[in-house]
Amino acid sequence: MSNSIDERAVAVLDYHDGSAGQVETWFQEVTGDHIACFVHESPTQPTVNVEAEHRKRVSKLTEFPQNGEFKGRPLIAATNWVEELLRRGIRKVLPLTPDNQTRLRQIAICRAHGIQLVSAIHPSVVVLPKAIIQPGVWINAGSIIGYKAEIASGVLINTGVQIDHHNVLEECCQIDPAVVTAGNATFRRCSHIHTGAIVVNRVEIGEDAVVGAGSLVLNDLPARTVAWGVPARVVRTTN
Amino acid sequence: MSNSIDERAVAVLDYHDGSAGQVETWFQEVTGDHIACFVHESPTQPTVNVEAEHRKRVSKLTEFPQNGEFKGRPLIAATNWVEELLRRGIRKVLPLTPDNQTRLRQIAICRAHGIQLVSAIHPSVVVLPKAIIQPGVWINAGSIIGYKAEIASGVLINTGVQIDHHNVLEECCQIDPAVVTAGNATFRRCSHIHTGAIVVNRVEIGEDAVVGAGSLVLNDLPARTVAWGVPARVVRTTN
Amino acid sequence: MSNSIDERAVAVLDYHDGSAGQVETWFQEVTGDHIACFVHESPTQPTVNVEAEHRKRVSKLTEFPQNGEFKGRPLIAATNWVEELLRRGIRKVLPLTPDNQTRLRQIAICRAHGIQLVSAIHPSVVVLPKAIIQPGVWINAGSIIGYKAEIASGVLINTGVQIDHHNVLEECCQIDPAVVTAGNATFRRCSHIHTGAIVVNRVEIGEDAVVGAGSLVLNDLPARTVAWGVPARVVRTTN
Repeated sequence: MSNSIDERAVAVLDYHDGSAGQVETWFQEVTGDHIACFVHESPTQPTVNVEAEHRKRVSKLTEFPQNGEFKGRPLIAATNWVEELLRRGIRKVLPLTPDNQTRLRQIAICRAHGIQLVSAIHPSVVVLPKAIIQPGVWINAGSIIGYKAEIASGVLINTGVQIDHHNVLEECCQIDPAVVTAGNATFRRCSHIHTGAIVVNRVEIGEDAVVGAGSLVLNDLPARTVAWGVPARVVRTTN
Repeated sequence: MSNSIDERAVAVLDYHDGSAGQVETWFQEVTGDHIACFVHESPTQPTVNVEAEHRKRVSKLTEFPQNGEFKGRPLIAATNWVEELLRRGIRKVLPLTPDNQTRLRQIAICRAHGIQLVSAIHPSVVVLPKAIIQPGVWINAGSIIGYKAEIASGVLINTGVQIDHHNVLEECCQIDPAVVTAGNATFRRCSHIHTGAIVVNRVEIGEDAVVGAGSLVLNDLPARTVAWGVPARVVRTTN
Repeated sequence: MSNSIDERAVAVLDYHDGSAGQVETWFQEVTGDHIACFVHESPTQPTVNVEAEHRKRVSKLTEFPQNGEFKGRPLIAATNWVEELLRRGIRKVLPLTPDNQTRLRQIAICRAHGIQLVSAIHPSVVVLPKAIIQPGVWINAGSIIGYKAEIASGVLINTGVQIDHHNVLEECCQIDPAVVTAGNATFRRCSHIHTGAIVVNRVEIGEDAVVGAGSLVLNDLPARTVAWGVPARVVRTTN
């Protein structure tokens, strides 16, 4: 019942065209691995009304999952997806699930089952000396990872982000396009910084905290808060 | 009276040193074409008081048109410049005129006369897979064009701009330095986004709309409006 | 008493890991010169409580001076450091002292003693044609130096900065990460622009003026003022 193991086969957790979809176009050339399937953690396939989705968008180029496939590859819909991967001989996962807590849990599942995490780092990314990047991250085009920056597994760094020297990004942070950090900033587990926000040096963003787009963060931000503005102020607390 | 056609000769519409002038320094090496002349759409040559211009600037390096030339090449001043180009055997145009409506009209003239539009894309630009770039655009150094982004003719993208995935930039948009867009943003015809503005995902900027420098655009912007601020609000309507 | 001269030996003025420390990791490969020592302009070695410093930081990777050394090389502590350099046969200096006025004075000392200033420009920096960069600058990864921009000695340009066409940066300016300038901006001597600020075209920042992080500078800023905000307003005057 079990396939032989394909050492270069990777399952991508997620199936959105703006993340999994764009990574698919350069992943194999950059890593040598190939994407064998995408994964939807659910007992049923996602139901997408493609015509309705296209009506909501000006771009008509977005690809959606259809008939159990995404971008010509199987889209596995299963709650016990890790067993399905093992059955198919897949031992590597690229975790792109957009929800940070879900991605954190999925990474734990991978580790518990001996699944290897792999990264997708676009070749235009500049990684400065002595940066430490754990496996299982996405870093998109044009980003800069500073000297001695530490990027933990599950971190998503989108287009044109600047992470400066001695930053610490804990597991499953998410950094949206064009975010800028100065030196010695810290991003606790599962924090999320939205597009174009600026974080000055030595600031610490707490676990699960969210910073709104275009914010200027001058002070530490407590865990499970949402902050926004120039300068950023806490606008609410989550739980 | 007519010259033979030079297939590699390009006329640049515009003669300002910050746009046409800087493109001139790398255009030939990047494209293989050469700049045969610059064009000023006017019955008379521009009158520039070079000493007065230099008094207004700290930099003394700006080059200005003088004696019917710019950067050692003819500056054609003519309202029917397209006939003059055809007479000289020039069949290619790089449209850099700063006014968006004027550039749109000039592109229509080129098309009506079988003039080919050509682009100037700096070699440091990162173009992600499946982006579609129509001919007749300028994209300056350090910019990133996202996955499946669509850039129409006449678009000007200045230094270090980030256009993210599934963006649609219609004809003759103008994007100033360091503007950042997130995914699925749309820029209707002739819209103009000034330096360092941030446009979040799925936002649509209307035709001829203007976004001020440093703005944060969180909502759709109607056609022919001017918006500014963090977050951006409509400050006036044009016509 | 004097060593023979080592033409490739460079003394770095400063010993902080975020500037001198990170430059050390790529300087020799990029320039062919080697860092012979670091310099602390003081009669005594800096006293650093390493454990206390590490308690203040999340990153544990920061290196500090200890026992008269930094990064395995001598840290020269002397008020007359230039004589010590000459004695050791060192004839080149890379000036990274963070205080702009101090760095300006140190550069004058170097010039008075025939010490050559050298630059550290990261290989990922894009320098556009006809830019003029004087010796004795630091330009960190990902920055763009525009067409005909003029960068004077002692200027520090940090990570991912965009300096656009016809900018003039006078001696010992300091430009923090991700600052963006549009065309024809001027930065007078020793001005300091903090992280992520935007300076629109034709603006002049006065001598010793300071612009706060995330500011949007739309108007000229007088000498010896501190400005902040969107748009930036003068919040105080220095002397």
